[in-house]
Amino acid sequence: MSRVSGQVRIVGTGLLGTSIGLALSKQGIDVILSDSSRSSQALAVDYGAGREPREGDAPNLVVVAVPPDHTATVVAAELAAYPAAVVTDVASVKLPILQELQAMGIALDNYVGSHPMAGRERGGAISGRSDLFIGRPWVVVPHAESNFDSVKAVTDLALDLESVPVNMEPIEHDHAVAAVSHVPQVVSSLLAGQLISTSAQEISLAGQGLRDTTRIAASDPGLWVQILSANAAQVAPVLKDLAKDLEKLIGALENPEAGGSLSVISRAIEAGNRGVERIPGKHGGGHKNYATVLVKIDDQPGQLAKLLTEVGEIGINLEDLKLEHSPGAQIGLVEISVLPEAEPKLVADLTQRGWRLA
Amino acid sequence: MSRVSGQVRIVGTGLLGTSIGLALSKQGIDVILSDSSRSSQALAVDYGAGREPREGDAPNLVVVAVPPDHTATVVAAELAAYPAAVVTDVASVKLPILQELQAMGIALDNYVGSHPMAGRERGGAISGRSDLFIGRPWVVVPHAESNFDSVKAVTDLALDLESVPVNMEPIEHDHAVAAVSHVPQVVSSLLAGQLISTSAQEISLAGQGLRDTTRIAASDPGLWVQILSANAAQVAPVLKDLAKDLEKLIGALENPEAGGSLSVISRAIEAGNRGVERIPGKHGGGHKNYATVLVKIDDQPGQLAKLLTEVGEIGINLEDLKLEHSPGAQIGLVEISVLPEAEPKLVADLTQRGWRLA
Repeated sequence: MSRVSGQVRIVGTGLLGTSIGLALSKQGIDVILSDSSRSSQALAVDYGAGREPREGDAPNLVVVAVPPDHTATVVAAELAAYPAAVVTDVASVKLPILQELQAMGIALDNYVGSHPMAGRERGGAISGRSDLFIGRPWVVVPHAESNFDSVKAVTDLALDLESVPVNMEPIEHDHAVAAVSHVPQVVSSLLAGQLISTSAQEISLAGQGLRDTTRIAASDPGLWVQILSANAAQVAPVLKDLAKDLEKLIGALENPEAGGSLSVISRAIEAGNRGVERIPGKHGGGHKNYATVLVKIDDQPGQLAKLLTEVGEIGINLEDLKLEHSPGAQIGLVEISVLPEAEPKLVADLTQRGWRLA
Repeated sequence: MSRVSGQVRIVGTGLLGTSIGLALSKQGIDVILSDSSRSSQALAVDYGAGREPREGDAPNLVVVAVPPDHTATVVAAELAAYPAAVVTDVASVKLPILQELQAMGIALDNYVGSHPMAGRERGGAISGRSDLFIGRPWVVVPHAESNFDSVKAVTDLALDLESVPVNMEPIEHDHAVAAVSHVPQVVSSLLAGQLISTSAQEISLAGQGLRDTTRIAASDPGLWVQILSANAAQVAPVLKDLAKDLEKLIGALENPEAGGSLSVISRAIEAGNRGVERIPGKHGGGHKNYATVLVKIDDQPGQLAKLLTEVGEIGINLEDLKLEHSPGAQIGLVEISVLPEAEPKLVADLTQRGWRLA
């Protein structure tokens, strides 16, 4: 069933390497795992992500999943060790790695960079999941020398992992991830950093807004130093634009009575409205406006299942579902998102069945 | 059952006023709704949030739920119209409103400000929900002149709405919400504002991190101009600290090879780690590390219910649940959070029952 065939060698058994290994192993592919840390390699093998390397291994495809700083060196070593294999990497930056490889003066026709747009706040083999890539974009980044078979092999890998392959130039990729991933990371980290000086009482007022804006601030500093420094050329200009907007807003807030100040504040919030509307929603469509229905349930095993069983019986498809956090209350609030046309029936039927709705 | 008794008059039938009216009406309280917009008032009455005002109304409690700019004026008018009533407001800033009232030279012993820490991206009566305040902090903000009965009446209101009352000084409140609400709003809006210039292909790479960090950027500009300008004295200093950190980081990114640059980047991400750890988790406890189990389900009615029914049968309590967005894939990923000690049993039993886990 899988498009990828033969042996696949994965170098680096962190979150991405282990997740790729788990998914391919499940499909019966012979996955070879290699990591400079013996314990990390052994852990990934224990997890079922693949096997230890053996004398005479002859992979068709090598996936380099090591931190960005080491990627070019490892790609070059793998190209040399397995001249018949296609080599790809999954690092979050693409142009600096390609330039590093080109500077080595080696043949790169078997190399195609790539970047699966998937991750978690926690890294390591222990966080690996075979489902990590499902439905996520997988950017395939050919360069001038890449041969057709190499591009096809990397695209096949993405498809086997149920990702959505997207072709981009290296610089296009780096520019895109600066905007949608690296700048949000910086901003979330800086925002969360301001919380260090708040009192326990102050922080107890935190709501979902603060939780959402700072969730990714829990990310690994070691990895992000490498990503941000490697993609600094793309990240810095966006941050400078943001800093300019911030300075303007601070100026308005320092003198809110001055003419024009309120308009500066309003335009900043309006620009945010326009920006967030551009983000595509679930299933890759545009940002859909779902109707939401809020149901109050007891915080006990089985209550949520009962609710959703009845939603199923009513025959309505759930577009999204959120449990709301209720600090201090032993009660659960379930926000059910459905297509707007389904809302009246859902509200009527749930109410009739005795559920407590707002 | 309710602590509040007699008539409650609500001035302003937006999200908060309507939600308070819905919750009190459900408890059998006689709720009077008043809004300067006749259509908004009529809509809230239609919703069941209360009734139209009548000649001879004599409220025990008046809740002013109008935009911050109008709050002090309306509070003063209500104190004059109903001298026997306790008057509170629910605006997001407290000291500027108190100072405005004090400057009027009127008696304020029946006035106690308050602020329920609840909201939604969408406003208006149409978004009102009786459950909006459940389990959320409700800051009660007495001042030097407030009498005991007034403070008790506002605390009782919070308790009747199943909120958690928290007492704070006006300046303490404004300082706290600057950090946990107003600054995150500004940062989210500025971040989302940078997305306006991204291409459709670039934005298609967006993941959950970008969605989370920009969700509140969908908020109402009109309301936020008032909140931010009213609390500018508390918001501006935090933004200036953030701007300093941002400038430092930009400097490091403009010259990542320079000595000390990597350490500047690393310290910024680490500070974010420390900040986000301070945010309390569900049920008001510290930030708990739940174990998460990821299950793949078909995107069809009934599948999620079936899964959760079985989780209930296994006897494990769900701490949190998230549906993961899968652009381009007609597949659902369910992330179930449970106490770490419950994970092995959940994984074993779900696997045995044929669920597809990572």
